[in-house]
Amino acid sequence: MRGEWGEVPYPLTVGHEIVGVVAETGAEVTRFDKGARVGVGCMVNSCRECENCQAGQEQYCLAGNTGTYAAVDRDGTITQGGYSTHVVVDEDFVLRVPESIPYEKAAPLLCAGITTYSPLAHWNAGPGKKVAVVGLGGLGHMAVKIAAAMGAEVTVLSQTLSKKDDGLAFGAQDYYATSDPATFEALANRFDLIVNTVSAPIDMAAHLGLLRLGGTLVSVGAPPEPLPVQVFSLFNNRRSFAGSSIGSIAETQEMLDFCAEQGIAPEIELIGADEVNEAYERVLKSDVRYRFVIDIDTLRA
Amino acid sequence: MRGEWGEVPYPLTVGHEIVGVVAETGAEVTRFDKGARVGVGCMVNSCRECENCQAGQEQYCLAGNTGTYAAVDRDGTITQGGYSTHVVVDEDFVLRVPESIPYEKAAPLLCAGITTYSPLAHWNAGPGKKVAVVGLGGLGHMAVKIAAAMGAEVTVLSQTLSKKDDGLAFGAQDYYATSDPATFEALANRFDLIVNTVSAPIDMAAHLGLLRLGGTLVSVGAPPEPLPVQVFSLFNNRRSFAGSSIGSIAETQEMLDFCAEQGIAPEIELIGADEVNEAYERVLKSDVRYRFVIDIDTLRA
Repeated sequence: MRGEWGEVPYPLTVGHEIVGVVAETGAEVTRFDKGARVGVGCMVNSCRECENCQAGQEQYCLAGNTGTYAAVDRDGTITQGGYSTHVVVDEDFVLRVPESIPYEKAAPLLCAGITTYSPLAHWNAGPGKKVAVVGLGGLGHMAVKIAAAMGAEVTVLSQTLSKKDDGLAFGAQDYYATSDPATFEALANRFDLIVNTVSAPIDMAAHLGLLRLGGTLVSVGAPPEPLPVQVFSLFNNRRSFAGSSIGSIAETQEMLDFCAEQGIAPEIELIGADEVNEAYERVLKSDVRYRFVIDIDTLRA
Repeated sequence: MRGEWGEVPYPLTVGHEIVGVVAETGAEVTRFDKGARVGVGCMVNSCRECENCQAGQEQYCLAGNTGTYAAVDRDGTITQGGYSTHVVVDEDFVLRVPESIPYEKAAPLLCAGITTYSPLAHWNAGPGKKVAVVGLGGLGHMAVKIAAAMGAEVTVLSQTLSKKDDGLAFGAQDYYATSDPATFEALANRFDLIVNTVSAPIDMAAHLGLLRLGGTLVSVGAPPEPLPVQVFSLFNNRRSFAGSSIGSIAETQEMLDFCAEQGIAPEIELIGADEVNEAYERVLKSDVRYRFVIDIDTLRA
């Protein structure tokens, strides 16, 4: 919204994690009928021809996937997001929202949900696996819920213990403060997988030291500046440092169905359209538990 | 030898990659007889109790494996290496050298060989896989030979094209100069695995950009300073940056047997003990094709 990840074509309607009802369908639409409960995530198109698109991994489109807002679409138009009463999206990039998930709880699944589900699934979080989640914000709290639902043993690594009760309620077994150096001694060589949801730089050597043999630290948030990685930290225990970006459309549907089946959903604060500026300031201060969702009906009033 | 990786207890007999004949065995030795052709690599002991040792991955011993020289062994003695007529080593850390590999060609397999074999095997180099090797020195030239013998399609990435004929003779299909920026455009998103054998810092964003979906760049050499890693380079194609450290004793034996079966061995220059200082200066200038081996018989003269 403020161009921290690159130049933005203002004026712009921002907003991803969009949920609603199909108002109208084009003549060639076959997968959705008027009235269907649907969602749109972080991308609305891709080249459909490169090897990644062909492999069903269009989030990694080699020509670049088309972001839900602020992107130049394949037809040259600038995409406009979900802070709006209507949005027009190709059916191939539209998800079905299961009946059991309320609209306002479904929305954050389309970015925070899939961004954490995808690496957890890819690196086999499940029974017998020890998973740490760094940061307990919008992404982190979904990572905890999803990893726990997958059967993994989950530990939260947060700067302080202020959200400990929440973390345990979301399904974590353990909760440690990263501001306490003793944490990094106590948990050395412990985890199979660490999902780092923090966008600010973290102490890479300290966090990599928590991985056991063959473990991976995967970042789903990123600071604009490079992170210094001590290669010796990777030699020990044959560790990996990886990145993961959202998930494919098929995997996003799989995640929605998984959340419906497991009865998990994000914690949200529902706000009106006139509260977005105040909410944005609270996000910057990490003062949100755990995702703001805008009730777009308030735009019609 | 010069303490670049940490303090060293001088005076010291250095030298790993040791090959020779069993001169004598202790009373409890069961696996080797006098006269056996044997080798010793980078480590001569480990704690044998931690989860990594128990898993047969003693190179990743959580208490630290015992280096072949300059390490404090479990009994408190300082280990002394192979620049010597004799060395005493626990049989559990001794390898069998297949008859078909000459002594002088077997030696470098015990570090350069296993250090490259282990990540190639771990990340499944083989038919249908595109593997790049960064650097064509002692480790790099073995990585090329081993990856090619495993059936992978191998590309060498070297600073210049000066060793191109060698690289192709060792089994590479392609050879590119990293000093030419066009290399990074031509090979973008191409490789399943990149084995980085260069100890000096490399341009991480440029090299990570060469990995295709799910690809891994694994470093087996390390600069003392941290490498700056742009997390966005990892987001694209769900890439990983990993480290790998030598290999287990069992895997080292597997590698020796594989090399014997495949008829591959390092390129070496055999020198006498009185030539080591000159050879060391040539190593520092990268003027060696591709590994110096000392004929220890010259020590007895």
